[in-house]
Amino acid sequence: HDSPKPQEKAIEIADTLINYASHFARHAAVWATRWQHHDITIEGALDDQIALRFNLYHALIATPRHKPLPIGARGLSCQAYQGAAFWDQEMYNLPMYLYREPHIARQLLLYRYQTLDGARRKAQKHGYEGAFYAWISGKTGDELCPDFFFKDVLSGRDIRNHFNVWQIHISMDIAHAVRHYEQVTGDWAFVEAYGAEMVFEVARFIASRVDYKPRRNRYEIIRVQGPDEYHENVDNNTFTNVMALEALKIAEYYWETLSETIKKGLTNRLGLTDEDRALWRDIAERLFIPEPDKNGLIAQFDGYFDLESIVPARKVTERLIHHEEYYGWPNGIAVFTQCLKQADLIQLFSVLPDRYTAAVMHKNYAYYEPRTLHFSSLSPSTYAIVAARLGKTEEAYALFKRALTIDLLNTNEAVSGGTFIGGMHTAANGAAWMMVVMGFLGLQVTSQGVALSPTLPATWRHLKTRVMLQGQTVEIDVSRAAMTLRNISVSPEPLTLRIAGRDVPITAAAKTIPLT
Amino acid sequence: HDSPKPQEKAIEIADTLINYASHFARHAAVWATRWQHHDITIEGALDDQIALRFNLYHALIATPRHKPLPIGARGLSCQAYQGAAFWDQEMYNLPMYLYREPHIARQLLLYRYQTLDGARRKAQKHGYEGAFYAWISGKTGDELCPDFFFKDVLSGRDIRNHFNVWQIHISMDIAHAVRHYEQVTGDWAFVEAYGAEMVFEVARFIASRVDYKPRRNRYEIIRVQGPDEYHENVDNNTFTNVMALEALKIAEYYWETLSETIKKGLTNRLGLTDEDRALWRDIAERLFIPEPDKNGLIAQFDGYFDLESIVPARKVTERLIHHEEYYGWPNGIAVFTQCLKQADLIQLFSVLPDRYTAAVMHKNYAYYEPRTLHFSSLSPSTYAIVAARLGKTEEAYALFKRALTIDLLNTNEAVSGGTFIGGMHTAANGAAWMMVVMGFLGLQVTSQGVALSPTLPATWRHLKTRVMLQGQTVEIDVSRAAMTLRNISVSPEPLTLRIAGRDVPITAAAKTIPLT
Repeated sequence: HDSPKPQEKAIEIADTLINYASHFARHAAVWATRWQHHDITIEGALDDQIALRFNLYHALIATPRHKPLPIGARGLSCQAYQGAAFWDQEMYNLPMYLYREPHIARQLLLYRYQTLDGARRKAQKHGYEGAFYAWISGKTGDELCPDFFFKDVLSGRDIRNHFNVWQIHISMDIAHAVRHYEQVTGDWAFVEAYGAEMVFEVARFIASRVDYKPRRNRYEIIRVQGPDEYHENVDNNTFTNVMALEALKIAEYYWETLSETIKKGLTNRLGLTDEDRALWRDIAERLFIPEPDKNGLIAQFDGYFDLESIVPARKVTERLIHHEEYYGWPNGIAVFTQCLKQADLIQLFSVLPDRYTAAVMHKNYAYYEPRTLHFSSLSPSTYAIVAARLGKTEEAYALFKRALTIDLLNTNEAVSGGTFIGGMHTAANGAAWMMVVMGFLGLQVTSQGVALSPTLPATWRHLKTRVMLQGQTVEIDVSRAAMTLRNISVSPEPLTLRIAGRDVPITAAAKTIPLT
Repeated sequence: HDSPKPQEKAIEIADTLINYASHFARHAAVWATRWQHHDITIEGALDDQIALRFNLYHALIATPRHKPLPIGARGLSCQAYQGAAFWDQEMYNLPMYLYREPHIARQLLLYRYQTLDGARRKAQKHGYEGAFYAWISGKTGDELCPDFFFKDVLSGRDIRNHFNVWQIHISMDIAHAVRHYEQVTGDWAFVEAYGAEMVFEVARFIASRVDYKPRRNRYEIIRVQGPDEYHENVDNNTFTNVMALEALKIAEYYWETLSETIKKGLTNRLGLTDEDRALWRDIAERLFIPEPDKNGLIAQFDGYFDLESIVPARKVTERLIHHEEYYGWPNGIAVFTQCLKQADLIQLFSVLPDRYTAAVMHKNYAYYEPRTLHFSSLSPSTYAIVAARLGKTEEAYALFKRALTIDLLNTNEAVSGGTFIGGMHTAANGAAWMMVVMGFLGLQVTSQGVALSPTLPATWRHLKTRVMLQGQTVEIDVSRAAMTLRNISVSPEPLTLRIAGRDVPITAAAKTIPLT
């Protein structure tokens, strides 16, 4: 990206590197800074410590730092996925920067801003408005995901997967990431210059994508693919609908909050009208959101519970004819069953931790986990985060180990539907950070502020890391008995964290809170 | 149906038939009456005459006369399709009765009235209202079409076809048949007692099925399967949308026309409100109807022209891996091409002959016919009817021969996607009558009345038949030079036919019109 002839340029640079010692010293200094920001120390489980650093290292080297560019879903480890970004970028890679080096998180979002035109072109191409972000996004933001992605290994025919047209939640995920960034950093200048425009364009996309059902007096979102990619062509995927509602609420919030000058500039440039906003509000009011049934269960999509239930999900593999078969669309072994490729409803619990009651989350976790194949590298980490927050520490730890070793032990399938999908799983690498900080430490943005709620796996004696909130750096030091918090910023400013239901001021003086 | 123990009953009846001569005489007398009603004589082509009578005979023996029961799609020739009715009944079998023995047509529609509750149950089951008629309809009208219909012969796995949920035009087809019946017979008593209720329930179904797209300010019909069954999951299938619009217009017309007493009874019984009617009118006004593009072409559905064009369609068969493969959903060789199983847009020209200009029909015929595989027995006849009306007599005749001999020469595939679909093609049998009377004689209901416009194939010297209109029987005698019309009713009443753009009174005195 930096040079029209990257190979020549690389050789040119290499030729200047004649003094090994000085360059090694420079390299080591850079890495010392990186680790200072990103390291997490675990005492009591050396294997976890090593595997965690392995993941953090790979997450770091996969992230472009010098320019707004995508994080490749396989980093630079291979050519699979073309070095392009998926929703993984916002959902799994952005958080570790957001809470440690927010300028990198900002730059990742800036990449999405700079690819807005690609998202607009994609929307137009499919008859929609606003920003329909690419499922596979490269330099321009135009869709790189081909219509035919996998192969039917039984017939040799290509399969028309619909990641590129039906997996619309990518746009909502980006709107959510903008808001998450703003909440954690307080960087309203970003919202004014870039974020609001992205969110408004996503709202516009949603408004052009929903269907109004006159006889049900509600909006629905028809024919989508949720995070669980084995079920294409579904209606009212709860994850998608809730994320759409959230995006519309964020749009409304920004509209309410931004200054008239900023708003005027934006509405003029985007051609937004009062009718647009009225429609967004109407949709937010009447969008169908699947609710828990009498057993507390929420359907992943319309009719999900009518599908064949196979528990544990692994049993479905007995129906394979060929080991490289694709399990999903159009006629794979998972399609007519409740077997999930990956967290879908549970993903929502990870992203919006205080939307549902603990009781509802417990019930749905218990229902969906045994039905999940975890065949996406994104899946075990998401379940681990939710399990840890729900206090299911043992279960969280088992999933953590599994997610942490996907690349180290090479446990994921490298070929699916005849397509090579191996290489480093950059999202899983970023998720390693999330499992520890957002899972075991229980860091989450709630409606009452940023909260912490640690629960250490049995073997861990000590966990230590730093997070940055509102520009302040907080050192978190957790032992089995207590948690110690300290604002280690050069110029500490007032900051509170929500701990055990109370606002706790974090100052330069260490504050120790006993853990029961 | 007539006895709980049909076999015993049949033996019992057979035992009473001891005098062959008298029973043969009775039999012959019944058949003489049948042929008096239904025969068509062709001079100049004995093979056509024989094949035509073969088809009429099979259409007659497949039709229950004594009770409102379905016409089996394979009659009584085999167990395929379970003796149940498809849209074939209204589209291909009803016309020959409608124009010759309207009491039989009435009884066929009465069958649909008696199965309204089944259609209501099907609508409810899928979250809709009104009457969603079964794709495969038996005694009760409940859906008999299984979710998994064909087999993927390459993998041995069942295929989830969606005839039962996406081929919604069946409901609109029945509404159209009610109106067609009323127009030809003038039997308003039927409309009052049964027809209007069916039409209103179909309108109600449509209102619950459409999607309103707020940013396009229009209603659309999403995720359907048109008559061309190789393309499932399509949007705004022109045939389906136009037939939906027609059904809504029929509903509005009946609402405007029926007496207050009848209407009050109906609305009370059905729980219809002014809001229902307002919604129907709103949908009729804003339902998206695909129009001819700058080349005069109408897309079969959204995005049809973006599919791969293969001309002639037969070339697609080179891609078969196994000769019994199903060509359609989900991954058959026709799915991503413009290759049609059967008439779809062209079906509309057959059903609504004066909706489009001749120029538009010519252009679309020229486009779609080479892309049609004619793998449904319903297809060549439909093209033959439209070709004959468009004056493409040679082409119509070739298609007529093909359609006429489907059973006689056994030309259709008996197995598709591993499923036996052979036996007598009852719809093709009924279509034989349609090709001659609605095609070569050009009989059609237009906005200006019932019209005739004969064009005989080159070898035919003479064609003679009868049709019944408004209770009057008209004898039609066409030679190459002239057409002679005569009202042969016992008590002739005033009747006009639209011929060459003029209203021609048909009386007991023979009227001869020269043909140029």
